[in-house]
Order: sequence, then structure tokens, then C-alpha cells
Amino acid sequence: MAANKPVSNNEEVFEEGDAPKEAQTVHRIRANSTIMQLNKILVANRGEIPIRIFRTAHELSLHTIAVYSYEDRLSMHRQKADEAYVIGKRGQYTAVGAYLAGDEIIKIAVEHGAQMIHPGYGFLSENAEFARNVEKAGLIFIGPSPDVIDALGDKVSARKIAIAAGVPVVPGTEGAVEKFEDVKKFTDEYGFPVIIKAAYGGGGRGMRVVRDQDTLQESFERASSEAKSAFGNGTVFVERFLDKPKHIEVQLLGDNHGNLVHLYERDCSVQRRHQKVVEIAPAKDLPADVRDNMLKDAVKLGRSVGLRNASTCEFLVDQQNRYYFIEVNPRIQVEHTITECTTGIDIVAAQIQIAAGATLDQLGLTQDRISTRGFSIQTRITTEDPARNFQPDTGKIEVYRSAGGNGIRLDGGNGFAGAVITRKLNFSFSLFSSPCPRQVLDKPFPLVVAQSSQRPGASR
Amino acid sequence: MAANKPVSNNEEVFEEGDAPKEAQTVHRIRANSTIMQLNKILVANRGEIPIRIFRTAHELSLHTIAVYSYEDRLSMHRQKADEAYVIGKRGQYTAVGAYLAGDEIIKIAVEHGAQMIHPGYGFLSENAEFARNVEKAGLIFIGPSPDVIDALGDKVSARKIAIAAGVPVVPGTEGAVEKFEDVKKFTDEYGFPVIIKAAYGGGGRGMRVVRDQDTLQESFERASSEAKSAFGNGTVFVERFLDKPKHIEVQLLGDNHGNLVHLYERDCSVQRRHQKVVEIAPAKDLPADVRDNMLKDAVKLGRSVGLRNASTCEFLVDQQNRYYFIEVNPRIQVEHTITECTTGIDIVAAQIQIAAGATLDQLGLTQDRISTRGFSIQTRITTEDPARNFQPDTGKIEVYRSAGGNGIRLDGGNGFAGAVITRKLNFSFSLFSSPCPRQVLDKPFPLVVAQSSQRPGASR
Repeated sequence: MAANKPVSNNEEVFEEGDAPKEAQTVHRIRANSTIMQLNKILVANRGEIPIRIFRTAHELSLHTIAVYSYEDRLSMHRQKADEAYVIGKRGQYTAVGAYLAGDEIIKIAVEHGAQMIHPGYGFLSENAEFARNVEKAGLIFIGPSPDVIDALGDKVSARKIAIAAGVPVVPGTEGAVEKFEDVKKFTDEYGFPVIIKAAYGGGGRGMRVVRDQDTLQESFERASSEAKSAFGNGTVFVERFLDKPKHIEVQLLGDNHGNLVHLYERDCSVQRRHQKVVEIAPAKDLPADVRDNMLKDAVKLGRSVGLRNASTCEFLVDQQNRYYFIEVNPRIQVEHTITECTTGIDIVAAQIQIAAGATLDQLGLTQDRISTRGFSIQTRITTEDPARNFQPDTGKIEVYRSAGGNGIRLDGGNGFAGAVITRKLNFSFSLFSSPCPRQVLDKPFPLVVAQSSQRPGASR
Repeated sequence: MAANKPVSNNEEVFEEGDAPKEAQTVHRIRANSTIMQLNKILVANRGEIPIRIFRTAHELSLHTIAVYSYEDRLSMHRQKADEAYVIGKRGQYTAVGAYLAGDEIIKIAVEHGAQMIHPGYGFLSENAEFARNVEKAGLIFIGPSPDVIDALGDKVSARKIAIAAGVPVVPGTEGAVEKFEDVKKFTDEYGFPVIIKAAYGGGGRGMRVVRDQDTLQESFERASSEAKSAFGNGTVFVERFLDKPKHIEVQLLGDNHGNLVHLYERDCSVQRRHQKVVEIAPAKDLPADVRDNMLKDAVKLGRSVGLRNASTCEFLVDQQNRYYFIEVNPRIQVEHTITECTTGIDIVAAQIQIAAGATLDQLGLTQDRISTRGFSIQTRITTEDPARNFQPDTGKIEVYRSAGGNGIRLDGGNGFAGAVITRKLNFSFSLFSSPCPRQVLDKPFPLVVAQSSQRPGASR
């Protein structure tokens, strides 16, 4: 394929002629697509997500650039790109901190001719300032507009947006609370349990569940100081805590022209310390009307802020099947893979093409053409030490055998024999099975469960 | 999962109660299915196909048994089963010949409590005598009935069956030809080119294309003697040779109760020395009416002989889109994977459940519920030496990196770092992509091509 060749704008190249038909047709796709003028993409991330993005970029005939910290110089993501550059000098940044050096990364992109930057998830993906700087440098940031990232990144503001759009939210304080008296006023009115959350938090950090009056003040103070040290901002808010709710997220995809669709939902209720561990698409045991209303509300909320590119709208569903908006993640998520498996849509390809200017209609992604087939489960495999409270573990992988076969998708990171894990191996293992809807007496779901629970351990 | 636990027939175990819901539901599947009473399967094969079968068997909660030749004692397929036994004693059989030792394999099955034998493809899969001996031993042979294997294994007889069923065949000799005069009579009537084929042949051996009178006699004699030495039977027949035809095969699935459906078709036209190299599902550039008629004819032919379990009905399609039946392969095929990818049906699971007595209806496999989504391409990767005319190569695999990501299915055999290839590594690499139907401006196929042509080489 033509990934490494210079792009020709000569339309005559694509005329019917004696050239091999297949090759021509691939060129025609590019000629007809809005990404024709773009030929180089940089991914500002590490682990398995740059690899996943490089694969799709490569299929779109884009040239790929990886960036890596000095400590990651042997990481797989460096090898999977057409070019790779170290961020800063040895010792200038930490192994992980390098991926937060936005200006350094933009400099690499400009120097080496990338026209687009994909931030992946985590790191700079929800950093509006970085997105603005990317645009200032004349490059395309693959994600929502910086203003929307700003508005949604703050949970208090996101909540206000949801209320304004008429989307139900968990009963909670009107905005950020600064004084303990305001917290107490809320519990006096709504009772316990409540959850105290950092306004700028994520991944479970700065969250505290309080079940009685006795520990309320101490919890509030600790949540505030934790939020301050983790996110540089001690703002918190208080909500009613829902016991054992389902955590459902709706995948959204919007273009730069105001069109927005949903790609159905994922159930991410299986968590450990507020971190997702196992995800399922579509959600199981959710009444059809509840799901349909949630999908509609997610689209409504997304449209109300002009959400573009890939985002996720997250809800909690209580035991009575009432759902409440909690937040929008304006970026690709680890678990996007299972939505790809069940809808058959390459979300990263859509992200890139949308960022390049394509409409959803051009991509064939109108709501009536999007459907799901079967179930899909993602399981994450990481190098952690159970004896040390699941702290990240390091070392060399001596033996590695990959799972495979029917219904298995693997998004590997640094998982290979001989790999040296310096910090954290975020090795995402996506297991899915579309066969199931028709098999084993129309009881699809348990078989997918059987498949996914057997595979990671046994690597059958 | 319960694979290694003894099977309980106590129905009360499956009553609603306090037990975990998921585990119960998996048990319920087995309780409701006809394979409940069967718990052990032996696969009489090597390479990647036993691994593929073990995976599905494991998902069906079956205990698995591998057999291996002494030389294959380090092969992956031995490791992927719950139990594994060597065939015969060291030196008793050749590395590959061991898998033809039917009686030895049946003995292992009986000794270790297997109730079913899956023959895979090649080896004993089309050996009616082996199938009969399996049944005589009180075991289930996963495949068509021995009589049907007999009738279809002989191409002359298969051709007669097709003619009787009203399915078009390539103009050719009425039956086997023994004398050169009969060959000459045929070419005098139909002209050149013709193809001489061994009646019991397969995989391109014993086949010869003749384009003029000069080489006819020599070719006939060589084809006869080649057939005799390769298949123990020198019977040949002669057909009109179609120049650059498409090779299309229809996947059939029949139960033991007379029901038969098709799972659409595959295009296997990309061949090297009559060996399939790249397969595509569904077929591209085939007019809808031609395809529909071919599917109908395949089902008609299958029903006329009472075909059960998985079989493939193969056709040639000429430049004028006329199609001709050529043969039935009454077994699973290497390329079944791409039909699984596009239909979402696990063919091996269906094979096992059908053999155990399930009806197509019980499996949800009625014709109206079977459809395709997207395109799928399979590419085979083998250890061959191009410098030695693609002869099988041996040695140690020093570095191995697996392909993966969105739209990639990998059915690996002995492909891993450190694997020692003693004879032939038949390492099938199945690449597919369901996303494509909706993407890149509704031009799905070229993207699948881009994906599959990039992946095996680059392992991106």
C-alpha cells in the first residue's frame, strides 16, 4: 500500500486504465475522501492506544508518528509507527510525565510534518489548553473543540449543561461546595449515603462515599485536600450516592457540521476502586424503553453543547431503572473496542475522517444505518502485583502466548516475549463474539461470558 | 468454567436459587442442549485446526483430547487440549503418517472416554472407513454419514449425483476413463483445453491441463500413474478446462434430521498450483441472480444425498458467469473462518452440536436467520522456502509478533517465539473486517483488502 509514498494530487493517476484494479480502488477512496490532503498523523500517547490508532491510520494510508519518553524507548508503540521521536532529553521528563509535555509534542509534530494529533485517552486528551495550542500551531486536534472540552471537563459545569438540556442528574449540590455547612445542609435535606467528588477528578481519585454524619466533616476535608494535590484544584461537590448502580455509557460520534449520532451503549458496572475492569456491549438486563430514553438523552445533551468527534455520555442506573447523567468523556475510551465489535464501525477511522472534515453522512454513519449484532466483552490485562495491593509491577515477560481464534480481538500493548515492563503495562484484551445471537438455543450472553472468562487465563 | 469438572446430571443444580446467576445460566445452556450427556471430544489432527476446535469445544464445556505424533510432541495443539496422547510408539509412524493411523486413534478415544471424534480436514476427514470404524466403536464421528462420504469422495460419482439433481456440471467424460481412446473421443467432441483429474484426488495433485493434441497422450498417462501413486487408485476423468474461472464454494450445514441450510459463499479463486492461498467471503463481483441460483443448487444437491454436518459445495464460474458444480468437500475447511466472521455463526460449534443430535432449528440456524455482514479475507501463512520452490521449511522461530486489533482474527498453529518447526507449519491467518460496510464512503471492499495485505507482512 501507498502509506510511505508521497501523496499525488494528480487526479489522472486515478483514471481507469491498465493499472491493477485493487490498488486503483484504494487510491480512489483517498481521492474521494476529505483526508486526501492530509498524510501524516502523530499520536501523543503510549501503551496500546497509539498502536490501535496507528493500525487504522495505516489503513487510511496515513503516515504515522509515535512519540515516546526515554524510558519507553523499547516500547512496542514506538515500533508500530512509521517514525518515532523521543520527547525531550534523557532525564528531562519522567517516564510518564513526558506525555504531558504538550509544547514539546507539538514541536515534534510541526518539525516532522504531521497535520493531525490524536491524543488517545488520559494524558492530554481532555486538556483544552493543549487542544488550543495544537490548533494555534496550524494542526488538527482530533477531538471536540477546546471550549467544549473546557465546559465538560468540569463536572459541576457538565451537570449544569445536563440540567439545562433536560437530562436527569443525580440529586446533588447546585455547584461546588466550599464550606462544610453547605455539605451538611445537603445531607440534612437528602440524607445518606452521599458521595463527595472532585470537580476536576477522574478515575476514582478524589471521590469519597459517606454513609453517616460521624465521618462527614473529616471526609469532606480529605476529599478537598486530595483533589487539590491530585488535580491542582480543591473544588468538590456532593451528590446522593446510589448503592450498586449500573454504570452505562453511550458512545457518541459527531461531525464538524452539527450532526451527532449514538453507537449504542456499554455496561461498565464491573469496576475495582472506581476503575473499569470488564465492559460489555450492549448493556444486558436494561429495559428497552430505559435504554432508548437514555440514548436519546445522550444525543440531546451532546447536541446542546455542539459535541463533535468521539465522546461518551455516562449514566448511573439505579435499582429501580431510573438513570442519571454523571459526566461526558470528550475523547476515545479504552472500551471503544467492544462498540466497534458489535456495531461493525471503526470509531478511530471515523474520528480521523471527521477531524479531516468528513460528514457523518459521507461516512455512511447516519443513525438508521447503525445497529448492533451480538455481545462483546472487554477484559483488561495489566501487570500488577496482587501481593502488593495491585500496585503496578515491573520486569521482563519471559513467556507470552496470545489468545486468538473465533470471536477474539486483541489490542495488545507491550505484551510479547522479551518485553521489559518499565512502568505499567496497560494491555487491553478485547474479547467479543458476534456468533452468539444465533447459537446455543438463543441464549447468547452466557456463551460470550464463558468465552471471555476462559480466554485471558487459559489463553486457549 | 466447568470443563474439567465431572458433569452432574442432577437437574436440581440448575434450579433458580442463590448460586451466581452467570454460572447457572452457562449450566442451563448445557442442561437444555443435546450435548449435555457428552463431555469429551478427541480431535484427530495437527496444526491450527485442532486448536480452533478445542477452543469451541472448551466454550461448550467439553473436555478435550489431542493426539500427536512423536515428532509433534512440542507442537502447540498438544498444549491446547486438556489431555494429549502420542499416537503409537516412537518410530512406529512418520511425523505426519501417525494422523492416518485410524485404529490407533480410535483406541485412544475409547481408552480415555471420548464420545466424539472430530477429524478436522485432510488426514482421515474424508475416509469413510474411518468414519465407520468410529461408529462401530460406539463413538460419534463429526461429519457426514460414511455412505455419503463414499458417494462424494469419488469425483465421478459426485458428478453423477449433481447431474441427477439437475445441477450444472462442466462438460466432461461420463465417468472414469481408462483408455486413451476415450480421452481422444472427448477432445474430438469438445476441443481444447481440457483438464485430466484423479477421481480420488484433492489439493491439486493428479491434475493436468492439456492445451493441444501433441501432449494429450503423455499427460493422460502421467496423470494416471500420479493418481495411482498418490491415492492408490489410478482412475481419472476428463473435463473441459475453463480459463481463469472463479472458484466459488458454498458453505452448507445440515442436521441429522434432514434439514439443510447454506451459510453463503466464499471466493477461493486466488490459488497457487491449485492450492487456495487467499479466500474472500462473500464473493465479490458475482451477479446477485447467479449467486442466488448457485446457493439454491448447492442446497438442492446436498438435500439429494442427505448431507449432514458441515460440507462445502464447490463451483467454477466462467467469464460469462455460467457456473458448474465441481465437487463436495464433506468436512470443515481451512477457510470456514471467514464465513464465521461474516455470518457470525460458529461453524465448529454447530458441527459438534449437530453431531450430538441438535436440530438446526434448536441452534437458531434456520435459513431466514442467516445473513452476512461485511467482507472477510483469509490469508494463510506457512513456513516455506521461496528459494526452494516453496518447499516446506524447518527451523526455530526466533522472533514472533502477532497481528491484532480491530477486525483481525488469528487462528495460529505453531507460531510463537521459540517454536521448532519439524515439518510443515500450517499457520492460518484469518483477516476480516466487519466495520467496512458502512465506512469510507460506502466502499467497503478495498479497505478490507488494504487491511489484509498490510497485516501479514507488517504485523501492524
